[in-house]
Amino acid sequence: MSQKKKKSLDQKPTILITNDDGVTAPGIAALVEVAKQFGKVVVVAPDAPQSGMGHAITIGKPLRMNPVHIFGDVEAYQCSGTPVDCVKLAVDKVLHHKPDFCFSGINHGANHSVNVIYSGTMSAAMEAAIEGIPAIGFSLLDYAYDADFGLAQQVAHEMIHQISSGQIPKKGLYNVNIPNVNPKQYKGLKFCRQANAKWKENFIDRVDPHGKKYYWLTGEFQNLDKGKDTDVWALQHHYASVVPFQFDLTDYTLFKQLTGS
Amino acid sequence: MSQKKKKSLDQKPTILITNDDGVTAPGIAALVEVAKQFGKVVVVAPDAPQSGMGHAITIGKPLRMNPVHIFGDVEAYQCSGTPVDCVKLAVDKVLHHKPDFCFSGINHGANHSVNVIYSGTMSAAMEAAIEGIPAIGFSLLDYAYDADFGLAQQVAHEMIHQISSGQIPKKGLYNVNIPNVNPKQYKGLKFCRQANAKWKENFIDRVDPHGKKYYWLTGEFQNLDKGKDTDVWALQHHYASVVPFQFDLTDYTLFKQLTGS
Repeated sequence: MSQKKKKSLDQKPTILITNDDGVTAPGIAALVEVAKQFGKVVVVAPDAPQSGMGHAITIGKPLRMNPVHIFGDVEAYQCSGTPVDCVKLAVDKVLHHKPDFCFSGINHGANHSVNVIYSGTMSAAMEAAIEGIPAIGFSLLDYAYDADFGLAQQVAHEMIHQISSGQIPKKGLYNVNIPNVNPKQYKGLKFCRQANAKWKENFIDRVDPHGKKYYWLTGEFQNLDKGKDTDVWALQHHYASVVPFQFDLTDYTLFKQLTGS
Repeated sequence: MSQKKKKSLDQKPTILITNDDGVTAPGIAALVEVAKQFGKVVVVAPDAPQSGMGHAITIGKPLRMNPVHIFGDVEAYQCSGTPVDCVKLAVDKVLHHKPDFCFSGINHGANHSVNVIYSGTMSAAMEAAIEGIPAIGFSLLDYAYDADFGLAQQVAHEMIHQISSGQIPKKGLYNVNIPNVNPKQYKGLKFCRQANAKWKENFIDRVDPHGKKYYWLTGEFQNLDKGKDTDVWALQHHYASVVPFQFDLTDYTLFKQLTGS
């Protein structure tokens, strides 16, 4: 066996963990607990909730990053930036190299269908994938702060086992949603495509104590997709949905039509 | 001719315009000037620069929106939210219906290749596309505040003409980048795919006047794609790149491999 090969077998993989609910959210602690069984975990996560931040990065102002000691013996940092900033800072200034894996979550709330585009959780995983790091985002269909992450941990364990053992391609970016059901009702992992869905906006407008109008975003989820191979269908039928993702947004059907290729 | 058909010919199309550089940026004024030739323009844009906001939305706090009178007789509003918030608010609270088109920009700076994922300009256009509104994002390869938008206006005019006349499919989302060249050097529109590229991060770390460390994002653009059908190639060869986009992020190659379909 070559020196290089031997070294790689002796070394535990380095696993970067982040989220968008903030470093103190119970969901990230649940994920750290699972990931520790697979390698050396380092956490770099936002110092405050960053839900809905999409793929935002911080350009116009500096970032702060400080160590936190809230995950036992796991090295962890809180960062003033977005989830994507956390991944960038972790690679450049904490690890000084690319980790073997990046896991994001476990998000308090769904990130299926079109929601991935708004999701800080999935954008952090996508940022890792752009860097060539195998990445998974995990989200539980329960927005509660004190949600029960038991089944989500079971699903995370199964997915991390599959990607680290090569059962599913390592060079991948996966969006995993876990249904909010009793573990006895849970049916297993299901590979899916992103459902075609949208939000029908309905801003609430109110008047503040100083007589000025303000608007607050609310909306109604509309699933426009009747397919049985979608993430929304899988979750409705008590599966954990696993959608493989990519970050080339080219519409190749239209591209071929426009170029005659 | 039916009443309905007659009405649609009499009515000018409604065109929503937004950007991510903020409502006072010269680039949006340049776009308003062009769009006015094609329909009734309404502007809803951020009240401050929002570059790099990606597809962020504002969930945890309310939004403010106020009229501004800076585009002559064009109805315009500034909004405290992100570019995506602007599109959502415009549809729900300003227009009370979907506009016929949404144009975003003209951005001060490039949004080709992987940059689209971080771009507020393109995310606003994508939000419109999710709503089913034909949308185009425009970006000029010049970050200067006082950039010359002459060629960019010429390109915008050509693209808006093509989409409004149906020469290119209306049900589309297009990312248009304009090279920073002399109009005499300009070679025309070129339909492209998104180049595979990334940023190599290089955070600058400094110490603030109070002795605390801070980090500032910088990076080096790396084009990993040698294809001649990419947006980066087109721009280097003095074309305006036009990439058709979609918002289904499913990696169908991997999806088929995983599901055996």
